[in-house]
Amino acid sequence: MIQIIAITNNQLHTPSTIDELKQHDYDWYWIDFDQPTDDEIKQLDEKLHFHPLAIEDCIHELQRPKLDYYDDFNFFTTHAINPKDLSKQEHDFFLGENFIVSYHNYESSEINQAWRRLSGVQDVSKWDHYRIFYEVLDKIVDNYFPIIYEIEDELNSIENNDDQEAMEILLDNLFDIRHELLKLRHTINPVRDLFYRMLNSHRLKGIRDRREYFTDIYDHLLKLSEMVASNREIANDIRDNYLSLNSHQTNQVMKLLTIITSIFVPLTFIVGIYGMNFENMPELSWQYGYFAVLILMVVITVLMVIYFKRKGWF
Amino acid sequence: MIQIIAITNNQLHTPSTIDELKQHDYDWYWIDFDQPTDDEIKQLDEKLHFHPLAIEDCIHELQRPKLDYYDDFNFFTTHAINPKDLSKQEHDFFLGENFIVSYHNYESSEINQAWRRLSGVQDVSKWDHYRIFYEVLDKIVDNYFPIIYEIEDELNSIENNDDQEAMEILLDNLFDIRHELLKLRHTINPVRDLFYRMLNSHRLKGIRDRREYFTDIYDHLLKLSEMVASNREIANDIRDNYLSLNSHQTNQVMKLLTIITSIFVPLTFIVGIYGMNFENMPELSWQYGYFAVLILMVVITVLMVIYFKRKGWF
Amino acid sequence: MIQIIAITNNQLHTPSTIDELKQHDYDWYWIDFDQPTDDEIKQLDEKLHFHPLAIEDCIHELQRPKLDYYDDFNFFTTHAINPKDLSKQEHDFFLGENFIVSYHNYESSEINQAWRRLSGVQDVSKWDHYRIFYEVLDKIVDNYFPIIYEIEDELNSIENNDDQEAMEILLDNLFDIRHELLKLRHTINPVRDLFYRMLNSHRLKGIRDRREYFTDIYDHLLKLSEMVASNREIANDIRDNYLSLNSHQTNQVMKLLTIITSIFVPLTFIVGIYGMNFENMPELSWQYGYFAVLILMVVITVLMVIYFKRKGWF
Amino acid sequence: MIQIIAITNNQLHTPSTIDELKQHDYDWYWIDFDQPTDDEIKQLDEKLHFHPLAIEDCIHELQRPKLDYYDDFNFFTTHAINPKDLSKQEHDFFLGENFIVSYHNYESSEINQAWRRLSGVQDVSKWDHYRIFYEVLDKIVDNYFPIIYEIEDELNSIENNDDQEAMEILLDNLFDIRHELLKLRHTINPVRDLFYRMLNSHRLKGIRDRREYFTDIYDHLLKLSEMVASNREIANDIRDNYLSLNSHQTNQVMKLLTIITSIFVPLTFIVGIYGMNFENMPELSWQYGYFAVLILMVVITVLMVIYFKRKGWF
Amino acid sequence: MIQIIAITNNQLHTPSTIDELKQHDYDWYWIDFDQPTDDEIKQLDEKLHFHPLAIEDCIHELQRPKLDYYDDFNFFTTHAINPKDLSKQEHDFFLGENFIVSYHNYESSEINQAWRRLSGVQDVSKWDHYRIFYEVLDKIVDNYFPIIYEIEDELNSIENNDDQEAMEILLDNLFDIRHELLKLRHTINPVRDLFYRMLNSHRLKGIRDRREYFTDIYDHLLKLSEMVASNREIANDIRDNYLSLNSHQTNQVMKLLTIITSIFVPLTFIVGIYGMNFENMPELSWQYGYFAVLILMVVITVLMVIYFKRKGWF
Ligand SMILES: [Mg+2]
Ligand SMILES: [Mg+2]
Ligand SMILES: [Mg+2]
Ligand SMILES: [Mg+2]
Ligand SMILES: [Mg+2]
Ligand SMILES: [Mg+2]
Ligand SMILES: [Mg+2]
Ligand SMILES: [Mg+2]
Ligand SMILES: [Mg+2]
Ligand SMILES: [Mg+2]
Ligand SMILES: [Mg+2]
Ligand SMILES: [Mg+2]
Ligand SMILES: [Mg+2]
Ligand SMILES: [Mg+2]
Ligand SMILES: [Mg+2]
Ligand SMILES: [Mg+2]
Ligand SMILES: [Mg+2]
Ligand SMILES: [Mg+2]
Ligand SMILES: [Mg+2]
Ligand SMILES: [Mg+2]
Ligand SMILES: [Mg+2]
Ligand SMILES: [Mg+2]
Ligand SMILES: [Mg+2]
Ligand SMILES: [Mg+2]
Ligand SMILES: [Mg+2]
Ligand SMILES: [Mg+2]
Ligand SMILES: [Mg+2]
Ligand SMILES: [Mg+2]
Ligand SMILES: [Mg+2]
Ligand SMILES: [Mg+2]
Ligand SMILES: [Mg+2]
Repeated sequence: MIQIIAITNNQLHTPSTIDELKQHDYDWYWIDFDQPTDDEIKQLDEKLHFHPLAIEDCIHELQRPKLDYYDDFNFFTTHAINPKDLSKQEHDFFLGENFIVSYHNYESSEINQAWRRLSGVQDVSKWDHYRIFYEVLDKIVDNYFPIIYEIEDELNSIENNDDQEAMEILLDNLFDIRHELLKLRHTINPVRDLFYRMLNSHRLKGIRDRREYFTDIYDHLLKLSEMVASNREIANDIRDNYLSLNSHQTNQVMKLLTIITSIFVPLTFIVGIYGMNFENMPELSWQYGYFAVLILMVVITVLMVIYFKRKGWF
Repeated sequence: MIQIIAITNNQLHTPSTIDELKQHDYDWYWIDFDQPTDDEIKQLDEKLHFHPLAIEDCIHELQRPKLDYYDDFNFFTTHAINPKDLSKQEHDFFLGENFIVSYHNYESSEINQAWRRLSGVQDVSKWDHYRIFYEVLDKIVDNYFPIIYEIEDELNSIENNDDQEAMEILLDNLFDIRHELLKLRHTINPVRDLFYRMLNSHRLKGIRDRREYFTDIYDHLLKLSEMVASNREIANDIRDNYLSLNSHQTNQVMKLLTIITSIFVPLTFIVGIYGMNFENMPELSWQYGYFAVLILMVVITVLMVIYFKRKGWF
Repeated sequence: MIQIIAITNNQLHTPSTIDELKQHDYDWYWIDFDQPTDDEIKQLDEKLHFHPLAIEDCIHELQRPKLDYYDDFNFFTTHAINPKDLSKQEHDFFLGENFIVSYHNYESSEINQAWRRLSGVQDVSKWDHYRIFYEVLDKIVDNYFPIIYEIEDELNSIENNDDQEAMEILLDNLFDIRHELLKLRHTINPVRDLFYRMLNSHRLKGIRDRREYFTDIYDHLLKLSEMVASNREIANDIRDNYLSLNSHQTNQVMKLLTIITSIFVPLTFIVGIYGMNFENMPELSWQYGYFAVLILMVVITVLMVIYFKRKGWF
Repeated sequence: MIQIIAITNNQLHTPSTIDELKQHDYDWYWIDFDQPTDDEIKQLDEKLHFHPLAIEDCIHELQRPKLDYYDDFNFFTTHAINPKDLSKQEHDFFLGENFIVSYHNYESSEINQAWRRLSGVQDVSKWDHYRIFYEVLDKIVDNYFPIIYEIEDELNSIENNDDQEAMEILLDNLFDIRHELLKLRHTINPVRDLFYRMLNSHRLKGIRDRREYFTDIYDHLLKLSEMVASNREIANDIRDNYLSLNSHQTNQVMKLLTIITSIFVPLTFIVGIYGMNFENMPELSWQYGYFAVLILMVVITVLMVIYFKRKGWF
Repeated sequence: MIQIIAITNNQLHTPSTIDELKQHDYDWYWIDFDQPTDDEIKQLDEKLHFHPLAIEDCIHELQRPKLDYYDDFNFFTTHAINPKDLSKQEHDFFLGENFIVSYHNYESSEINQAWRRLSGVQDVSKWDHYRIFYEVLDKIVDNYFPIIYEIEDELNSIENNDDQEAMEILLDNLFDIRHELLKLRHTINPVRDLFYRMLNSHRLKGIRDRREYFTDIYDHLLKLSEMVASNREIANDIRDNYLSLNSHQTNQVMKLLTIITSIFVPLTFIVGIYGMNFENMPELSWQYGYFAVLILMVVITVLMVIYFKRKGWF
């Protein structure tokens, strides 16, 4: 779908096609390619005459956030995050002297919000195409936060879990969180670096004019990037801690096993001796043979216990 | 609560409202927003006319330490640390040509100390609004030290602990310390980087004029940041050491278990054979069958012991 | 084999030897050394008079991707990847004012594609020797992608594998993938860095003139390099996860072993006592001796079960 | 204690107090504050009029090596290492146009050596206050070497140790060495960075004039810093190696335990069956029952051995 | 031994002493200090008048590769590698306007090769003292390669080893290789960095004039440094892989042990019960008591097997 808003003399117009738009001379206009059909995509070339490499970058998904300077427009690619699977949703923008063209292959709540806001605005004099750009980017970046907050909550709940039996599940959750943080990092950091370039570029007058506003988004990106790094470190720490405790517990389990084995296996051997059926076993007919063996076994047990106590295993 | 001190001709005045302050022409003044109510917050905009983005940064907690240049003031955000839970306590400052406005949503001992000092000073001629800024920051940074000293003491006590049984607790303490150091790093390093920017900014004349003083705080921040990094490394080393020893101990325990099992299980099998009740078992009626078996078992034991000695397990 | 295409007045010519080529004055020409014989290699020196160090770099395989400036030509080395074993296939290029000389010791599908494309083109006016260079590099870099996609698919299949028994194979596959990613990184990153140098060099007018095109390849290299790093991290995470689960499982196995041993070994000892053949064992002739022992053993078992329940081992 | 040497016309003088020193006009002088009393410390302010922040840095121990420029002197802090416990011994220097003031709260062999050398020199014309500075720093840095050499020797002796039983001690020694290397790194690296700043500062003419000499010390610091890093890596490698071998040994121990258990526990069960006292057990009265069971057990044992051989456990 | 070659008017001369050399005015000359005696070393100072710090750096071994500018010469230190023990063999060079002085405390095959080459050359007009410098450095760097190739071969043989029993040896070899790679890194990387400085120095005209040649060596150093890093990573990966497999195998061994124990220990307990000699044990005289117990034990075994099958342990 292609939507158009065009402004002239503080008046909003909504030409229904690009051809219609071109017939008038507007102050500035915004064209939104919302999940366009193949025919609509062709208009990027045929009607708007953008550079073929920029159009290729629009259509293909394999883009990193980036900023390319062309002769009569600048081209931006950035990513929103789908909160469901943390997949990237590419948003492309062509910014010219008096226009912004947005392009997205997914339904974009951020674009829709900005569109509704502009449509409903009373006094359009404070708006221009760079303001549109700012509004959409601000929404995109704001939408990163609840995703990280949710991960922080999950990490907290894992960290405080004391139910030993669920550890397999906890470790699996930790792994998933680490994976999600990796994905987030690979989305947020490149967007952050793109903003750094935008803010320091000498060729983007529209951004220089509202530097405070774009810097405000950049602040959020710095914060987000730190939160991702810090949560990843915490996830590592929690896992290392579980493994440390696990290793310690295995050690304790082994000690218990060894103590029981060390005490009872020799005793069982002794009683096995006097369970043998040899005809000639003098001890068997001794008056106090049985009691002597019992006492011997008590002595062995006591010595064993003392030995393990000395080793500090109790 | 809003508190105001205003200085003119080396005289302290305490106007009770911003309106009252505005009626006079003071040399410089300090307004402190101490855990302000919503109505008081509105005065940032209505009375003091700060930029909406700076006000937004004041009100919301989600700030990294930062420095923003606006047309008629500079905006600083920095963090004190709550010694109880190591949480961050944001302090915001608006510094203009002849004023400082401080803002904090927590009770701030650092602000209170500076306020008391200024209130009690005899000769106010050596003070101005940048001196206030210095005094508060100096206190904030000084208050980081006891927190790290305490962590160092805890690490020392963990490192020297020889009580084997408490290892689960030690590992848990280590994990907590690592977590605390992570939090401290995420507070101290950004504040340090903010100071670096402040000291190297060409737009902050008030700081350039007392460069030695702000550099002195920056020295402390460098030291703090190194202490955090170094303690984190030590915490890692201690944990790795515990795990190494644990792994070694498990190995030793396993060896003991294996030795005892290897010696007694075959012997128990042998005595089991002669405990069988078959009618036709020739050995049972041999004159010295019993003693032959005893000797056989001694020989097996001796061979086993020699074998494990050769392996170096004793 | 040496192949030559020479262009003049938008006409393609195919001189069969370098001598023949030199007799005419072409607008520009392309000489391809395709797995040349020793005699053909000599022509680099004798006919084309390239610098001996550049020729040495051609012939020997031990090159990193690089760019050397000589007086009358620039020398490039870059690597294609053999999809079968991920080995590097060196491609060398000499670019002069009106020529490109390509050199490769392997059959090169990328060179062949560009050769066919140029041979079949109708209007050669938009082509020059730098366009050839672009076309070959573009193919080389495009051919990196399917290799990484395949690795991503393998990683996904490993991550979702739930068949415990195959873990030895999974770990081995993971190791191979890590090895392959290492190889890819050592190919892709130097090529990426070479492009960075090419794009920022002031001495390569032919590249500056089609900056958008070479930047487009550079974008792909940045993306590839990120994919390699990210997949390596994922491979690490998967392995760490397997090891965590493994360690946890060993712990669980040990607990089961210890429980069974702890319960039955003492019981077996007790029944062993009453299996002894001493003549004087009063309990044996008690009316309810047998039942007393059975009850004793039930009590011991119940106490053991309670003990392990309390420890949380069940 | 405060010591003073003052030079004029190539003559050494030793004024006993700062007041006495100030009465004459010397070419240059050196004042050494050797573990000064509180009264002596006050003279830094009252007699020498240094900046209060520099004096504060002298008195307090919490300094990183650093260089501060003041109006009429430069202030340096650097650390010697106490070879006994590797603690830092702060040395502070005030260098002015014609003086050096050294300050140290510990007995300083480095200062003492330089003092003796200057006192005994015949021709003082080649000396000035920056030469003093060089001599002391050179000694301080030279004294770092034997400490690292000793650590290298210890690491070598740990690496070549083959006595298995002492591993707990070896691991503990490794941990201590790692700790010591951490301390050394935190001393040496900041001193190295300070030298870098000193050598590249445009405000230290006295150092620029003897650049070769200070560069020579800087070379040593680079070497030291590399030795520390490299020894730390070697310590890590040794520990990882011990742990690898340990883990492998545990595996071998477990295999032995499992083989013995797997063979004898079933056999013991079988002999246990025929040790039962049931009245009606037909096998017991078979002529060759006993021998049949013996053969059965040999067969089981052989099958087990073949099984474990196939698994490669022998 | 001190060797001298001096060139004038394309003629080689071989003065036998430095004094003899100084009597003539040669175009350029090369003095080689080959494992010099103490008396010969003194000539660096007395005859050649080099700076005492440069001479000190010659004589002492504790040098990092480096380049120092003095007034009338440049001083270089670099390292050859002894292929036997990978120890460093320091080579020092003094390069002046028309001379090179080389110094080495070891027999140097690289120096000898260059010496023979120069001695045998027909037309000496293309040689000068910087060419000597290039020839020796080129040999030194070329000699690094076979050392790394050998390590790569060893790593390959370790990686493909399938003989489980030799793992202790493999791990030890891996450790040695890691140690060797560490040594190589600490030799090659500083030499690489020295070349970077040499190539980018504005004070070394002799090197600027043969930039392509020195760049060619630098290429090799870059490649070597990458090979070392990459092999170290591979060594880490192989070790991690062995440890992963080891940990997995231990788990499998434990499972087998637990299965066998869990099945036979309860059974052995049961047969133990009926091996007791109580007079009053009703089951013993039951007609089918024995067979009932056998059936009970088969049932228990089947249940156990089903249980472990369900757990996926088979
Ligand atoms: Mg796109
Ligand atoms: Mg926002
Ligand atoms: Mg903000
Ligand atoms: Mg906002
Ligand atoms: Mg991480
Ligand atoms: Mg961690
Ligand atoms: Mg705020
Ligand atoms: Mg302070
Ligand atoms: Mg202070
Ligand atoms: Mg200070
Ligand atoms: Mg760390
Ligand atoms: Mg560590
Ligand atoms: Mg080549
Ligand atoms: Mg491409
Ligand atoms: Mg593209
Ligand atoms: Mg393309
Ligand atoms: Mg990695
Ligand atoms: Mg990881
Ligand atoms: Mg890990
Ligand atoms: Mg001090
Ligand atoms: Mg020295
Ligand atoms: Mg020295
Ligand atoms: Mg030196
Ligand atoms: Mg380290
Ligand atoms: Mg290591
Ligand atoms: Mg030397
Ligand atoms: Mg070479
Ligand atoms: Mg060469
Ligand atoms: Mg080369
Ligand atoms: Mg490494
Ligand atoms: Mg690795």
